Amino acid sequence: MEWNKVKIEAEMWIKESGDILRSSLNNPLDVQAKSNPNDLVTQMDHEIEQFLTDKIKNHYPAHLVLGEEGRGDELTSTEGIIWIIDPIDGTTNFVHQKYNFSISLGIFENGQERVGIIYNVMDDECFTAVNGEGAYLNDSPLQSLTKGNINESIVGLNARWLLKETSVEDGSLHRLVKDVRGIRSYGSAAIELAYVAAGRLDAYVSFRLSPWDYAGGAVILKEVGALLTSFDGEELPLLGTSSLIAARPGIHEDLISYVSAQ
Amino acid sequence: MEWNKVKIEAEMWIKESGDILRSSLNNPLDVQAKSNPNDLVTQMDHEIEQFLTDKIKNHYPAHLVLGEEGRGDELTSTEGIIWIIDPIDGTTNFVHQKYNFSISLGIFENGQERVGIIYNVMDDECFTAVNGEGAYLNDSPLQSLTKGNINESIVGLNARWLLKETSVEDGSLHRLVKDVRGIRSYGSAAIELAYVAAGRLDAYVSFRLSPWDYAGGAVILKEVGALLTSFDGEELPLLGTSSLIAARPGIHEDLISYVSAQ
Repeated sequence: MEWNKVKIEAEMWIKESGDILRSSLNNPLDVQAKSNPNDLVTQMDHEIEQFLTDKIKNHYPAHLVLGEEGRGDELTSTEGIIWIIDPIDGTTNFVHQKYNFSISLGIFENGQERVGIIYNVMDDECFTAVNGEGAYLNDSPLQSLTKGNINESIVGLNARWLLKETSVEDGSLHRLVKDVRGIRSYGSAAIELAYVAAGRLDAYVSFRLSPWDYAGGAVILKEVGALLTSFDGEELPLLGTSSLIAARPGIHEDLISYVSAQ
Repeated sequence: MEWNKVKIEAEMWIKESGDILRSSLNNPLDVQAKSNPNDLVTQMDHEIEQFLTDKIKNHYPAHLVLGEEGRGDELTSTEGIIWIIDPIDGTTNFVHQKYNFSISLGIFENGQERVGIIYNVMDDECFTAVNGEGAYLNDSPLQSLTKGNINESIVGLNARWLLKETSVEDGSLHRLVKDVRGIRSYGSAAIELAYVAAGRLDAYVSFRLSPWDYAGGAVILKEVGALLTSFDGEELPLLGTSSLIAARPGIHEDLISYVSAQ
């Protein structure tokens, strides 16, 4: 495959999807709750996933699609070429903020990173990478990440993970909040991973994400030398959910020690 | 005073300041800690405050200036026309993210709101208001805020306020995190107040802020019908620090009950 050509095509379809989402913002939304009242899905999630799946299947009939809303294929292995898409990452932001939502795509070949795209629609910021060819924010190359220090780090972390019911037993995440320079939260895992790649965050931590949340980020982060694993330090699965630590070098190991203290 | 004319001038000086900050991002920064290792100030905070103070004093010699870095006047009352400026709100973001920092200005006459400007430099988003004439994001008027509901709200809250040492005793802020739809944190109080005015956040809560953090926001929020008080429901002081709740109608009262449970 000419992955650069694939990236250019995919980026074009994603920008088209962004246009559709932007122009949908003035129309009434059909919002539904999924697993809980705060886990939202709209008709636009379904519409964009269908739009992208149709494009992929028309141009690359042999490729497989794994999408958050289930409009792609049912996968049981990571063999072949798989496009992993989140049509709207940060649906709550899409519904409530009309801001800070993204479209995320990761393409993998037999489990290996090939192309990653995260498009922050309203900021018109497109983070892209082709494996081995570096990462970009729009037309500007992203720098390789330098070594960081936990006490001077800005960490992306959702406040929900600090509650007793969901946090680690011994309060080590509370220690983390004390030890770092600042905590930020934007409400879109894909955007937060893109920000780690761009150096806007030194790390991002989440207790539970799905492949469509991190597939695009995984490809982009690899290109800038970020570390990306589960809390156990394992590679992230492309099928199934996982905890996640994405960080610049020097911080990742420290973060593992905070979350593994549980 | 022709406040519209003042607003146009002030906006021009603030945009000039933004240009200076943007072009400073590639230069080495002289970063110093103030009250604690995470409370940063740079030579750019001082330079921008001096730049704006000079402009104000040259054009309006009778006006007073209250600035975060102390380059303005020493004030003991709110009499007269006072320009309250934060040259860089979100200095930690400026240093570490090179993103999501703002310049904030509020002009008050004998304690009354006159002009408010919050400029998110890197996003090039300028939130402005003249008392009684509505608020704007760049050239687009901001809508009056409709009534909200706490369970469907997105609240700006720094994770630090959830730690035992800094939070309310009975865990009511933890209840708040559970009860709302989502918590966000951007690291610049002025940007978070502007987001409440723009409807991107339904509320913003902070335990301790200074007048330069909220002076610009106060003018803008009033124009869209947001409520802005201390935790006690009192008007915010223009001299001295305060806790702060900014929220759309229907949510503000509920937030008071969470924080006053302490």
